[in-house]
Amino acid sequence: MNTLFIVGTGPGSMAYLSPAAREAITQSRHLVGYQLYLDLLGELAIGKEHHAKALGEEIDRAHLALDIAAREPGATALISSGDAGIYAMASVVFELLDKEARPEWQSVTVNVIPSPTAMQLVAAHAGAPLGHDFCTISLSDLLTPWETIEARIHAAGQGDFIVALYNPVSQKRDWQLNTAKDILLQYLPAETPVLLGRQMTRPEEQVRTLTLATLSAADVDMLTLVIIGNRESRAFQHGGRHHVYTPRGYARKLESHT
Amino acid sequence: MNTLFIVGTGPGSMAYLSPAAREAITQSRHLVGYQLYLDLLGELAIGKEHHAKALGEEIDRAHLALDIAAREPGATALISSGDAGIYAMASVVFELLDKEARPEWQSVTVNVIPSPTAMQLVAAHAGAPLGHDFCTISLSDLLTPWETIEARIHAAGQGDFIVALYNPVSQKRDWQLNTAKDILLQYLPAETPVLLGRQMTRPEEQVRTLTLATLSAADVDMLTLVIIGNRESRAFQHGGRHHVYTPRGYARKLESHT
Repeated sequence: MNTLFIVGTGPGSMAYLSPAAREAITQSRHLVGYQLYLDLLGELAIGKEHHAKALGEEIDRAHLALDIAAREPGATALISSGDAGIYAMASVVFELLDKEARPEWQSVTVNVIPSPTAMQLVAAHAGAPLGHDFCTISLSDLLTPWETIEARIHAAGQGDFIVALYNPVSQKRDWQLNTAKDILLQYLPAETPVLLGRQMTRPEEQVRTLTLATLSAADVDMLTLVIIGNRESRAFQHGGRHHVYTPRGYARKLESHT
Repeated sequence: MNTLFIVGTGPGSMAYLSPAAREAITQSRHLVGYQLYLDLLGELAIGKEHHAKALGEEIDRAHLALDIAAREPGATALISSGDAGIYAMASVVFELLDKEARPEWQSVTVNVIPSPTAMQLVAAHAGAPLGHDFCTISLSDLLTPWETIEARIHAAGQGDFIVALYNPVSQKRDWQLNTAKDILLQYLPAETPVLLGRQMTRPEEQVRTLTLATLSAADVDMLTLVIIGNRESRAFQHGGRHHVYTPRGYARKLESHT
């Protein structure tokens, strides 16, 4: 069997590249991915064949990775930033395997190596906003009808989930984020804490704390990950730093404890 | 300032201990956590003071970690398995800092280091079940009223989220999982793929694929992570392995592509 690894390298720098991901890349002779991500691998990528051309669409990259893995001896690694299984390459590869199912791909074993996704880095930076039940919603309506996305935002509000918004805006659209805000304001107080995280682990890393009422698409770009708290989430300052967390319900225990 | 690191070591073995987590532990003189987790750190834990006694309740562990960090020179690391920010220690520490706010804790800077959580390992093992919008729900009603949990399960069904269930059963209760199944069957087909993952990254690792109709609390224990697909999730076999994925909506593109 030939092997295709789908490797998440974590957000940004290599500070979250796990030993499992490192091992998969080390084993591979072929690397498929954006040249930017391959360059970030540094010495790990040296001496391997890079396939970084014409990688416009995710579907073409997944196709290329499967074709190389089927054709070439030695393992192939498809490199993805963040977690390869969360709004990334893994689902595209498995969709191709299932629906297109080319005979030559039958010889390829596919192994996914997970990593933290941007949401986890932003959360850790701020404290513990994901401390209770949460959901993720992509605001990109390129492949998902807006009605489906809108129904999910309502469901998130009804269920009082903490919400992580991926793809909050694009170069061509930003009304979706303001609409999401208006929907969530039907369920959440205006002062609900909101986090905007950009360029996590990179020198430009920035995490801002604001409130749902002051959230505006004008302050958000394509590289921003947005986390909106639930009805229990709290923002406070400690030692000059802003923190946001969502309690798991120890409040009553705390009262009896102190 | 003294530093308290809250470090997620990833699920199970050290295969997902990131360089960032390793660095935080290396910098620390004091380690707080279950002895089992400290032992797993191997040589990383050698030469440091271990504080692993009387760690019954999470709240006591968080208290102890803050007290040590405030009192002792050199950094302290509170060790958590999985992601420290997801159903783990980080939210307890920040809840204490916010609500109890002891003056001696003011000198402590708290830094959280994220890691993959069990959900991500189970998903990667199976393929890409978290390939579209998903939510997490803990079925433990120890700190959260069951009505809140039940409302979230309904919301997850209404919003057609993929659902990851944490704490699906305990030694004392298992009716919650069967109730969750019955609720989700109001929204999802009986053949919706379900994954049961246990002991991820350990020798005993096991991931089973079944359907929502055949899910039963009798097959699930405290160490199991349950992932339930949404209406689009698909199970298929490739090269003798069972895979589950949730497509991101490339189906129409695939048709025009092939």
